[in-house]
Amino acid sequence: MTEKNIQATYLIETSFPLEKAAAVMAGEQSCGTFLRTPGETDELRENHAAEVLSIEETALIEKPGLPGARRFPGGEIRQAIVTLGWPLENLGLNLCNLAATVAGNLFELAPFSGLKLLDISLPKLFAEKYPGPAFGIDGTRQLTGVENRPIIGTIIKPSVGLSPEETAIQTKMLIDAGLDFLKDDELMGDAPHSPFERRVDLVMEVINRFADKTGKKAMYAFNLSGEIEDMKRRHDYLLAKGGTCTMVNINWVGISGVLALAKHSQLPVHGHRNGWGMFSRSPVLGMEFPAYQKIWRLAGVDHMHTNGLRNKFCESDASVVRSILSCLSDFIGTKSPMPVLSSGQWAGQTVDTYEAVQSTDLMYVCGGGIVAHPGGIAAGVESIIQAWDAAMNGRSLEEHAREHSELKQALEFFNPEK
Amino acid sequence: MTEKNIQATYLIETSFPLEKAAAVMAGEQSCGTFLRTPGETDELRENHAAEVLSIEETALIEKPGLPGARRFPGGEIRQAIVTLGWPLENLGLNLCNLAATVAGNLFELAPFSGLKLLDISLPKLFAEKYPGPAFGIDGTRQLTGVENRPIIGTIIKPSVGLSPEETAIQTKMLIDAGLDFLKDDELMGDAPHSPFERRVDLVMEVINRFADKTGKKAMYAFNLSGEIEDMKRRHDYLLAKGGTCTMVNINWVGISGVLALAKHSQLPVHGHRNGWGMFSRSPVLGMEFPAYQKIWRLAGVDHMHTNGLRNKFCESDASVVRSILSCLSDFIGTKSPMPVLSSGQWAGQTVDTYEAVQSTDLMYVCGGGIVAHPGGIAAGVESIIQAWDAAMNGRSLEEHAREHSELKQALEFFNPEK
Repeated sequence: MTEKNIQATYLIETSFPLEKAAAVMAGEQSCGTFLRTPGETDELRENHAAEVLSIEETALIEKPGLPGARRFPGGEIRQAIVTLGWPLENLGLNLCNLAATVAGNLFELAPFSGLKLLDISLPKLFAEKYPGPAFGIDGTRQLTGVENRPIIGTIIKPSVGLSPEETAIQTKMLIDAGLDFLKDDELMGDAPHSPFERRVDLVMEVINRFADKTGKKAMYAFNLSGEIEDMKRRHDYLLAKGGTCTMVNINWVGISGVLALAKHSQLPVHGHRNGWGMFSRSPVLGMEFPAYQKIWRLAGVDHMHTNGLRNKFCESDASVVRSILSCLSDFIGTKSPMPVLSSGQWAGQTVDTYEAVQSTDLMYVCGGGIVAHPGGIAAGVESIIQAWDAAMNGRSLEEHAREHSELKQALEFFNPEK
Repeated sequence: MTEKNIQATYLIETSFPLEKAAAVMAGEQSCGTFLRTPGETDELRENHAAEVLSIEETALIEKPGLPGARRFPGGEIRQAIVTLGWPLENLGLNLCNLAATVAGNLFELAPFSGLKLLDISLPKLFAEKYPGPAFGIDGTRQLTGVENRPIIGTIIKPSVGLSPEETAIQTKMLIDAGLDFLKDDELMGDAPHSPFERRVDLVMEVINRFADKTGKKAMYAFNLSGEIEDMKRRHDYLLAKGGTCTMVNINWVGISGVLALAKHSQLPVHGHRNGWGMFSRSPVLGMEFPAYQKIWRLAGVDHMHTNGLRNKFCESDASVVRSILSCLSDFIGTKSPMPVLSSGQWAGQTVDTYEAVQSTDLMYVCGGGIVAHPGGIAAGVESIIQAWDAAMNGRSLEEHAREHSELKQALEFFNPEK
């Protein structure tokens, strides 16, 4: 039998006998149905059928998680973790068809009242065809000049409506305050009130001037999501103006689009995952981040959004930590994408974040947590740097705050318990 | 105030006062949070803030549909239909950023234990930039020569494992039997055991020879999902060999990739929606097909999968009918994509389908419903044609079967009630 070197692990929920349910998944995603079709010889099955590698029952469930499933007569509803394996031979090195294989027509199969892709593993050959992030953590550190601590960032707000002139003024204020990284909002792109090229012109003028003066060049991720030729053209324009980062709405640009941009790009690709809640928010449907980031890593995304601890969205801290660690882990020899922690971040989460992920190879993106600091934006940035110092030196924030006034102010102002 | 000519309708579930919850959505997807940021002037809000156009409460709910939502103190959980409006000015004509606006960071917002995009409406300007399907229904009818009834199709099975030679043999058998349309499985692409070009060579030789002899050219949708340059190259190869249809896994190739292919293509683009269950299967998360098909229609998809009545997946007939009708409806002047009905289809669903959608502008794709017909594949095709004749002439299948033996056999063999 051929080696099953593409593997995917799922949470399933079904009233069918687990072996039977897993066989339906394997059949649907390889030779066809789990009934034989005329052309399905023994040899073909041996070479191409997906294999059920393991089934582990995890829970008995009272009510189905999703409606519409067929009920197996007399069957109780169970949850289980199932791993399927495919030979690479089934699809070859093709990222789009890989996604169709591990995350295709599975989610609607009748026996399942729940089906969620948890993780995938792939043969190293994928990394030969798809080398992954060209910049990743080291490349991003080189471009920003930030070492030995997280890259500290913020987002230009309001999300939409600012003219290029206003964006440049805000950029100046933010980099004067010491920020390492800025980004367009995902809603901003090439709107009539802020055409891409004009925004690049004015923002990069500010950034370049500051860099000439201080030696510190802030990274600004410009959202160039759109048609392939437009994205390439905008990349070239940005590069010529001294820009150091592109940003794409990865779920909408898609795998083929991101691959085309990443191959063309001489700059890191900042991957914005807006829409991700659709994939992830149901506990029994969609996919989890470890699988997701592997696909986008291979597509060449250098920065991956992960949310941060105690974020303003619905994602739990456990899920956030798992996401960050999955970015930082090795995956068939590709560079790690830099995890982007955002949403409700301020100095307060640094110690817990460091404790959970044991790394500073992060982008730590704060909105109000920096700009609303009572001492001003520079004090806001300083409070984050101080808080990461505390985290890296094993000190509590309160202890560290005794000697660091910006952190002290932040704790007094932002701490919801006070 | 600027015209809010981009609109999106959502099902929401929240324990927050509905006005407040809707304001959070509008804030997140336009100027920023629903708290003002420093740059957010009155003028900017007036020109760019998303507007809550309507809120209609629909139900009181006992248990939250999704975990993780923040609970409003003392608030009961309600469902409501909410419509938001944005000025086109916010994003300009950009399909990727449109998706980020109507389906972006919404699904994770803390007040919501459910959020599903139901439908969108767009200004006609979108159709000027994105003209939609180049072929659609009329173009597909011209290429297949099928008029006045659905295009009858099947899928090459097993899904993976057949060599190009075996695929060509199966193609010959199927077109000899009278099929109008064949397609690769979505798992098939450019695998080592069936390289794309070799498959095209052998399959198109069979199809071209049959067309020369009979004047009837079957349409075969070849799955060329992959990198942009590969897709264009494969399209060109297919075109040169006389092929008449390309197929893509739209969720993975993505909007930018499909746009690039569709712009380049001189052939219809058959849109396979595998993975769609992730978007749709939760009643309170993701998006519904009417919104989805509008985005892909603008991206240039000529055929959209919709499932069929009484399908083997979990989708209800009501949802299938709504999907088909949304494809057939006018949308800012673009051509309709041809709905592709599949999954468990046979002669038995034709009358109900016609009654529900009042159209034969459909691709009716059967697997076992044709090839497992006891009289053989040709009899299987004939049974479908006869069944559609009955549907179009207002006759019951049983009545029509009295004079049509292939249909009679099908009813006896497939009808689950017998």
